[in-house]
Amino acid sequence: MALRENQPLSEVGEFELVEAIVDNFPQGEHVLVGPGDDAALVRAPKGHVVVTTDLLVEGRHFRRDWASARDVGHRAAAQNLSDVNAMGGRTHTLTLGLTLPGDLELGWPLEFARGFAEECAKVGASVVGGDVTRGDAIVVAVTAIGTCSVAPVLRSGATPGDVVALCGRQGWAAGGLTVLKRGFRSPRVLVEAYRRPEPPYDAGLQAAEAGASAMMDVSDGLVADARHIAAESRVAIDLRTADLEIPEPLEAVGSALGVEPMDFVLTGGEDHPLLATFPDAASVPEGWRVVGSVGEGSGVTVDGEEFAGAGGWVHF
Amino acid sequence: MALRENQPLSEVGEFELVEAIVDNFPQGEHVLVGPGDDAALVRAPKGHVVVTTDLLVEGRHFRRDWASARDVGHRAAAQNLSDVNAMGGRTHTLTLGLTLPGDLELGWPLEFARGFAEECAKVGASVVGGDVTRGDAIVVAVTAIGTCSVAPVLRSGATPGDVVALCGRQGWAAGGLTVLKRGFRSPRVLVEAYRRPEPPYDAGLQAAEAGASAMMDVSDGLVADARHIAAESRVAIDLRTADLEIPEPLEAVGSALGVEPMDFVLTGGEDHPLLATFPDAASVPEGWRVVGSVGEGSGVTVDGEEFAGAGGWVHF
Repeated sequence: MALRENQPLSEVGEFELVEAIVDNFPQGEHVLVGPGDDAALVRAPKGHVVVTTDLLVEGRHFRRDWASARDVGHRAAAQNLSDVNAMGGRTHTLTLGLTLPGDLELGWPLEFARGFAEECAKVGASVVGGDVTRGDAIVVAVTAIGTCSVAPVLRSGATPGDVVALCGRQGWAAGGLTVLKRGFRSPRVLVEAYRRPEPPYDAGLQAAEAGASAMMDVSDGLVADARHIAAESRVAIDLRTADLEIPEPLEAVGSALGVEPMDFVLTGGEDHPLLATFPDAASVPEGWRVVGSVGEGSGVTVDGEEFAGAGGWVHF
Repeated sequence: MALRENQPLSEVGEFELVEAIVDNFPQGEHVLVGPGDDAALVRAPKGHVVVTTDLLVEGRHFRRDWASARDVGHRAAAQNLSDVNAMGGRTHTLTLGLTLPGDLELGWPLEFARGFAEECAKVGASVVGGDVTRGDAIVVAVTAIGTCSVAPVLRSGATPGDVVALCGRQGWAAGGLTVLKRGFRSPRVLVEAYRRPEPPYDAGLQAAEAGASAMMDVSDGLVADARHIAAESRVAIDLRTADLEIPEPLEAVGSALGVEPMDFVLTGGEDHPLLATFPDAASVPEGWRVVGSVGEGSGVTVDGEEFAGAGGWVHF
């Protein structure tokens, strides 16, 4: 039976569905056994194993009217690849779990799989296994497994005197989400940044090799995530707005919507740039921008002052 | 604020919830960085990496009135540990994703975590990371990562002349599920077998070392899963009912409910015994039972005849 992309999943056999999804996942040379057996088997590069996992729930982490299935596939992979990147590691293997409603059209998981595969290909990682089951809502469960070939960079290693540096876009996704929430579709570059973040996948290892003392990816907001490094390292961090870039489209959205564009940069999440600390400015690698400094004390300040935005307490 | 187990999750902070769950997961000596950083970091034993993942959805894979949260935790871990076992590997590391409704009481995820941790402790594996998010239904996403220190045993290696052997309980969980479906709670030993399967975690490596030619765990049914080995190995398999044990409680349930007890053994899933083929009876290790033979051809027969039960086509 030929499958049509507009066919509801309730009319598709489970094995056919799995096969159609798996067809999108090329298996790298390091994969000895891919999907289909009890478990997958992989030859991993030498080094420590890095593992991370994330769930995306429709309505909470994505909306089908704001992002295509392919976009969601890109984003689901990106946020996990980024977590491995933030340790100084590189992902070689991923697993994917999907719960899908029966009335969803087949095209959704297939387009999702294409986007997921495209994002994984950026770092040469293979999707070796997964599970697909019926559920009332779309839930995406991703686990990324990588190797850290150098000493891993944790959140806890910053010391007073270090400089704080950033690599990658920051605030773009928040700008894109804001215009989507207000019913607009432009500036297109921001909407695209929200739909498909572009984490700097080469920067994690680069920073680790350059001697970064602490590192994480910015997924919840620059100030909010800097607080994690400050807390784990038992130091104070000061961010300098003069060194934080406000790209032209964020300026445009800010003045159009009456929002301070620096707020996107300070509080926006989901761009997945890397935030790291280095012993001095000279050790900060190319492509990174020094945006602050580490001192004695605790907490995060912006231009030396308490930051009022980006609340702390999150209710489940 | 002190947490109470009967508190609805909507009143619990996300970080508090994660902390309360993570408290149940001791970190083994091989774990260099556990939960809390961007990703976890693990020192893995030498060998190939074995990876598997599974989703459990409430209402589809478990019911809260048929199994306690602790039972579901045991089962969610067991089915993944079993998949690694079925390759001849051993799990060292797991990740856990949970989507939880806001009106669920805190006690559910905490009891789940206790059961999950207890099952993982059986093989010395650590739960190093996870993700918890709000969702309309309970979805459990597990990934198990292990090491195969010997040549892995796939489904595709059986050859004509091999013997087929089984290790572990088979049919018990199906018997337990059947009595639960009819509103009974006994025989208790069967209900318990359904709630907490007991896969033979030492038998996978044992079989691999003994020269097993093919192996898998029985999760969907003995005949149904034997068909996978037959198909992947391009051989025929004949199972002999005279060699399949029918335990006393299954006899009792059979006569009480008017069900042929051998049906539980031939078609029941979720016990997770191992089904393997060996070059001859002499190489079958202790604790395993020879239950059939491998021949030329294709498909699975029972006592030399086509088996009518255990249908093939599964609609999503």
